[in-house]
Amino acid sequence: VPGTPTLPLLDRARALGAELAASAAERDRRGGVPLEERQLLRQSGLLSISIERELGGEGASIRDILESVRIIARADASLAHVYAYHHLLLVTVGLFGTREQYVRWARPTLAQRWLWGNALNPRDRRTVGTLHGDAYVVEGEKSFATGARDADVLVVSFLEASTETLRVAVVSTDTPGINARGDWDAFGQRQTDSGTVEFRRVRVLRRDVLVEPGPLGSVRASLRPLLAQLSLTAIYVGLAEGALVSSRDAARERGPADDLGLALAGELQADLDSAGALFDRAATALDRAFSRADALEPHERGEVALVAAAAKSVATRRGLDVATRAIELAGARAVGRSRALDRFWRDLRVHTLHDPLAYKHRDLGRWLLEGVIPTPSFYS
Amino acid sequence: VPGTPTLPLLDRARALGAELAASAAERDRRGGVPLEERQLLRQSGLLSISIERELGGEGASIRDILESVRIIARADASLAHVYAYHHLLLVTVGLFGTREQYVRWARPTLAQRWLWGNALNPRDRRTVGTLHGDAYVVEGEKSFATGARDADVLVVSFLEASTETLRVAVVSTDTPGINARGDWDAFGQRQTDSGTVEFRRVRVLRRDVLVEPGPLGSVRASLRPLLAQLSLTAIYVGLAEGALVSSRDAARERGPADDLGLALAGELQADLDSAGALFDRAATALDRAFSRADALEPHERGEVALVAAAAKSVATRRGLDVATRAIELAGARAVGRSRALDRFWRDLRVHTLHDPLAYKHRDLGRWLLEGVIPTPSFYS
Amino acid sequence: VPGTPTLPLLDRARALGAELAASAAERDRRGGVPLEERQLLRQSGLLSISIERELGGEGASIRDILESVRIIARADASLAHVYAYHHLLLVTVGLFGTREQYVRWARPTLAQRWLWGNALNPRDRRTVGTLHGDAYVVEGEKSFATGARDADVLVVSFLEASTETLRVAVVSTDTPGINARGDWDAFGQRQTDSGTVEFRRVRVLRRDVLVEPGPLGSVRASLRPLLAQLSLTAIYVGLAEGALVSSRDAARERGPADDLGLALAGELQADLDSAGALFDRAATALDRAFSRADALEPHERGEVALVAAAAKSVATRRGLDVATRAIELAGARAVGRSRALDRFWRDLRVHTLHDPLAYKHRDLGRWLLEGVIPTPSFYS
Amino acid sequence: VPGTPTLPLLDRARALGAELAASAAERDRRGGVPLEERQLLRQSGLLSISIERELGGEGASIRDILESVRIIARADASLAHVYAYHHLLLVTVGLFGTREQYVRWARPTLAQRWLWGNALNPRDRRTVGTLHGDAYVVEGEKSFATGARDADVLVVSFLEASTETLRVAVVSTDTPGINARGDWDAFGQRQTDSGTVEFRRVRVLRRDVLVEPGPLGSVRASLRPLLAQLSLTAIYVGLAEGALVSSRDAARERGPADDLGLALAGELQADLDSAGALFDRAATALDRAFSRADALEPHERGEVALVAAAAKSVATRRGLDVATRAIELAGARAVGRSRALDRFWRDLRVHTLHDPLAYKHRDLGRWLLEGVIPTPSFYS
Repeated sequence: VPGTPTLPLLDRARALGAELAASAAERDRRGGVPLEERQLLRQSGLLSISIERELGGEGASIRDILESVRIIARADASLAHVYAYHHLLLVTVGLFGTREQYVRWARPTLAQRWLWGNALNPRDRRTVGTLHGDAYVVEGEKSFATGARDADVLVVSFLEASTETLRVAVVSTDTPGINARGDWDAFGQRQTDSGTVEFRRVRVLRRDVLVEPGPLGSVRASLRPLLAQLSLTAIYVGLAEGALVSSRDAARERGPADDLGLALAGELQADLDSAGALFDRAATALDRAFSRADALEPHERGEVALVAAAAKSVATRRGLDVATRAIELAGARAVGRSRALDRFWRDLRVHTLHDPLAYKHRDLGRWLLEGVIPTPSFYS
Repeated sequence: VPGTPTLPLLDRARALGAELAASAAERDRRGGVPLEERQLLRQSGLLSISIERELGGEGASIRDILESVRIIARADASLAHVYAYHHLLLVTVGLFGTREQYVRWARPTLAQRWLWGNALNPRDRRTVGTLHGDAYVVEGEKSFATGARDADVLVVSFLEASTETLRVAVVSTDTPGINARGDWDAFGQRQTDSGTVEFRRVRVLRRDVLVEPGPLGSVRASLRPLLAQLSLTAIYVGLAEGALVSSRDAARERGPADDLGLALAGELQADLDSAGALFDRAATALDRAFSRADALEPHERGEVALVAAAAKSVATRRGLDVATRAIELAGARAVGRSRALDRFWRDLRVHTLHDPLAYKHRDLGRWLLEGVIPTPSFYS
Repeated sequence: VPGTPTLPLLDRARALGAELAASAAERDRRGGVPLEERQLLRQSGLLSISIERELGGEGASIRDILESVRIIARADASLAHVYAYHHLLLVTVGLFGTREQYVRWARPTLAQRWLWGNALNPRDRRTVGTLHGDAYVVEGEKSFATGARDADVLVVSFLEASTETLRVAVVSTDTPGINARGDWDAFGQRQTDSGTVEFRRVRVLRRDVLVEPGPLGSVRASLRPLLAQLSLTAIYVGLAEGALVSSRDAARERGPADDLGLALAGELQADLDSAGALFDRAATALDRAFSRADALEPHERGEVALVAAAAKSVATRRGLDVATRAIELAGARAVGRSRALDRFWRDLRVHTLHDPLAYKHRDLGRWLLEGVIPTPSFYS
Repeated sequence: VPGTPTLPLLDRARALGAELAASAAERDRRGGVPLEERQLLRQSGLLSISIERELGGEGASIRDILESVRIIARADASLAHVYAYHHLLLVTVGLFGTREQYVRWARPTLAQRWLWGNALNPRDRRTVGTLHGDAYVVEGEKSFATGARDADVLVVSFLEASTETLRVAVVSTDTPGINARGDWDAFGQRQTDSGTVEFRRVRVLRRDVLVEPGPLGSVRASLRPLLAQLSLTAIYVGLAEGALVSSRDAARERGPADDLGLALAGELQADLDSAGALFDRAATALDRAFSRADALEPHERGEVALVAAAAKSVATRRGLDVATRAIELAGARAVGRSRALDRFWRDLRVHTLHDPLAYKHRDLGRWLLEGVIPTPSFYS
């Protein structure tokens, strides 16, 4: 049983970040699955903060969960991604499934410090499930399955064979037939383990399929993609902050900056602050929407979707710019691979290619020009 | 005696904005001093909102005052400037002077709906005062004296002849020897009346000179420049919002946008949101600092200065960009002078030339690179 | 008969520019049709430079014509537009019509210093012509008819009533039934007189309709839109150069710049140089294509279209940025309307709204991604 | 003896580029000194193209040499750097030294296909030479010594011990006491071998010291830094072109782009074209200046310095942007390390940190605002 946490949540996130930072550059070179660091994640107690107090968790707010993601991303955006998706997937059970399902999976997550991995990729339609009695037999593969190799539980999506209906279910990684290929070798986010997972005649119990209300099955359930969007945004903001702070540290070794150096530093700081402030606003809005629970109205949900889209856009664009130019503060002598000042740009660049900004801008543009709020989907 | 306001403050600001908007484009062409609209300002009751309740005012928060500036600036940034400076100058008496001085000037401001004008320009060192008995005889001129021509009261700065000390004082515009030249004819902010004021042997009573604690004479007093900075920032944000909304209205007349139009609209909206969110954060921080009153610590003041600097930088840069590109949504048929879609850019461009961003960036850069908070001055 | 020009063409353009510059800011305020300055244009002898030597003209290269447009635009972009379109329209007769038609119209243009105006707007489909014997009776209106009010000759487009075929023809402004409304009152390019022209039962002689090879009727004929594109680009580049030089002049009055001012000036100069260099490359390419005459291959024409599209994109985007930021060099005291540092941005903003960059980018993108050269149209 | 080259120079550069491209991504991961590829460089015959025809070389123009650098940089910017510096260093002997010195070193370079390496870093003042008879004894180290490890000849700078005069000399790498440390391990330009070279009592013959006219010793000699600047610019332009083409290739595998993808591609292409056009202009200007030889006037040299500064600024800024955003064309599935779409950004980022743009902008700004041409130095 996990001990009572003695430090406030965000302080624990900071402590974990500090620990991860020490080896982040080296692990970035290595890639692969950082088993030891994922173990640190489990030991931190941070994996159960979203679970409500009455079940023994900490009942952390969505706001604080997102903030902890941002803090960890400053040090190590790969781990931050795994960490953010763990929370997202556990929350997904609460949003797409019944109370009974949520409780059944939350309890052992807490007790055994489970780490959840992602095999929910609705755009990848290669996985199909056929109902046989009380279970689906699931067959196929899923790409971009972040964190799957060392996960204890997976949330998986598949198409019901007969109806092509999208099903989302929970499955233990012990279940025979699940194989994570370990084929992730990107130039950024190198330790997210976002490769392909294969399902060979995997039995997924019917009682673990989330059908009440089901995927995006209610206004509340459709907060799930917004939590996904803001989890990514938290990582982008954290990455940009990490980039600026790392370059600042290198700049300080170099000696005092001239007026042009100060001006550059100030401009980047201001841009970063604007991304941070908009992210904070979006996270607060989502938090409020979560606490509205089943009373949440579509237009309220839509307003959160809009500010989340704006926050993602700004974090992406300002982030890439900060991650590029901050290095100018550090100068030509700070380019060694051991310092890895490039990793922030690489992580941001890889991560922001998914679900391009064009779609966010279209949603925002439709609202501005036509007064239409975004239709809930897995990406908006 | 002003009647009890029946509508919440921000609603009244919106109503005033709507009234001003109708003639803003036409008055922009005309320039000069908008006497009628300044009268609307007086009648709105908004000029006394900052005065505390026990003196009969509304005790509005700094946050709400700034928000009302932003709302008015969406419609008419010239009037918003006059309005913002009115509040700034009245608050200045409370910050630089004694309680007795503040009360003495606040009461008739409330009772007679006075509008305050600016002759406090510490960089313009051409105005000098010589003490004769209980009054200074003030001689010289001040440029950029916003709103002076139709003001009831001026806050004026001058150098004490013998010591070159900067003095700040309140003076009624009835006082003989004050002459506003009406020489403001800029390409933007055309109705701010920011021309030159001449002082010819003007008697300024010693009891109206603000020496306890005096200009920037305490940590609390040094909040004054931060209120000035955020008053400008509120105008910039409002201008950018006005630009986007005006172009959106023109775009709607034109018909549905294609994907590229939607993408542009969305990108501009996101950028604007980031400027707005950072402004909100800065305004909230300043509000908190004001409520700390004499307990305010220098480092707390410094943190507000930093977020205010960042907010100004972002509002300026994003604002100019939005004011330029939003017009692309409106298209080639929306370029008529009567619609005046260019006025937002012109207002922003003129207004943001004062106190260049380079100084804000240097302050932010020093903090980032050297950990130093800004030294209070009239501009930071 | 015009005397032999004594100065090289570009020197004469510079001299004309200097003359126009003196009153440009004042005339920008006034708007309307600058009859006196259009007279200067006629007197400059520059209106006949494109006419070949054997007809008595100067046989100026396309390269030099475009360069003269750019030079004039530095001083006065409205006149530059009228001037550029004069050349474009005269050249159009040579491209869309027969040798005989060209000679018939070029001779009096030379002898009587005619100025040509535009009523060729293929997107505006409201003008229709019906053939009666040897003439079309043309009825309808055309918007954006640059320079029409004081023009001697118009090039007009209309739809043939029976077939909806696009016809392009030359018509003297003496012809009864032509009425320029003078309804142009934009916030920029204020003296281009780009209002609406009405045609009320206007007789257009069949022999003045350009049908051999007709509009875009051959590879060579389809150089016409490229000359139009680069005429606009020449104006944009000239405007940006004018903006930088005007702000520089104001900056010099202000005294020496600090390091940040120098850095800004340098960055803007570099951006402007890049727009200028790409424009030069495009103008040279178009010049070469013109000299290939009927031997010109579609792929050669396509390559010019691509570099012209790129040049327009860069001139637009860098130009708007330079026209916005250059004013920072001049500072807060240079915002007077008499100096009109804003007019470059206003002119650029109005002018670049026609034929949005999105279409240029799509052409360039298709070439990059699909290897396809642009299909000739009136805009590419 | 090298055979007669059978292909025009730029075709040979393209062929070499194609060969290097095949392994560039893999070698980028590896880092170190690419001995095999440097051997390809020697075998290409391209190392002697700058040598005049009467000495047996090809007498290639500066323009063509720079263009060949750009072509190679599209494929492999590390090798392009080594290649560019080889030419720069050999040309340096002709500019800083006597005809006799040039001929003495050019002949074996041609005959034995020597590759020249860099130890000329005037900012690194740690290397000192003391004259003993007919040789200096040189002691110290030099950082950023590109290509030194596998070079046949080095150009080295040192301070004369007694006078602190900067000396530049040629020395064979056979000379005892020279040791290249191999300590270059940057996140970009990974195979340039730009580490530290140590000199331990190295004898540098007096006759190999370049004192007539000496470093920057004449207007012509001061073209050397401009060739250095444009060699770097050629690499930046080539890198940006390589980035766009590589992403385009990935985009094509992905299938047709939508309108937003086409628009992005087009915008990047236009920006790249502007950088390329300005580089071409600068290279042409430098070429002309070289051919002016000893007749070159300071103001002519200054004008080349200005256009070179502008070209470097634009190539850097547009290049970083293109290298960041082009990857969006390729999409989330193109992020594998084997494809290494990030290497262009990494190479550009590392390479452009030397000699920051701020100095170029200051030079350009001084010219714009004060009419002053840049003073020759090793960086301008």
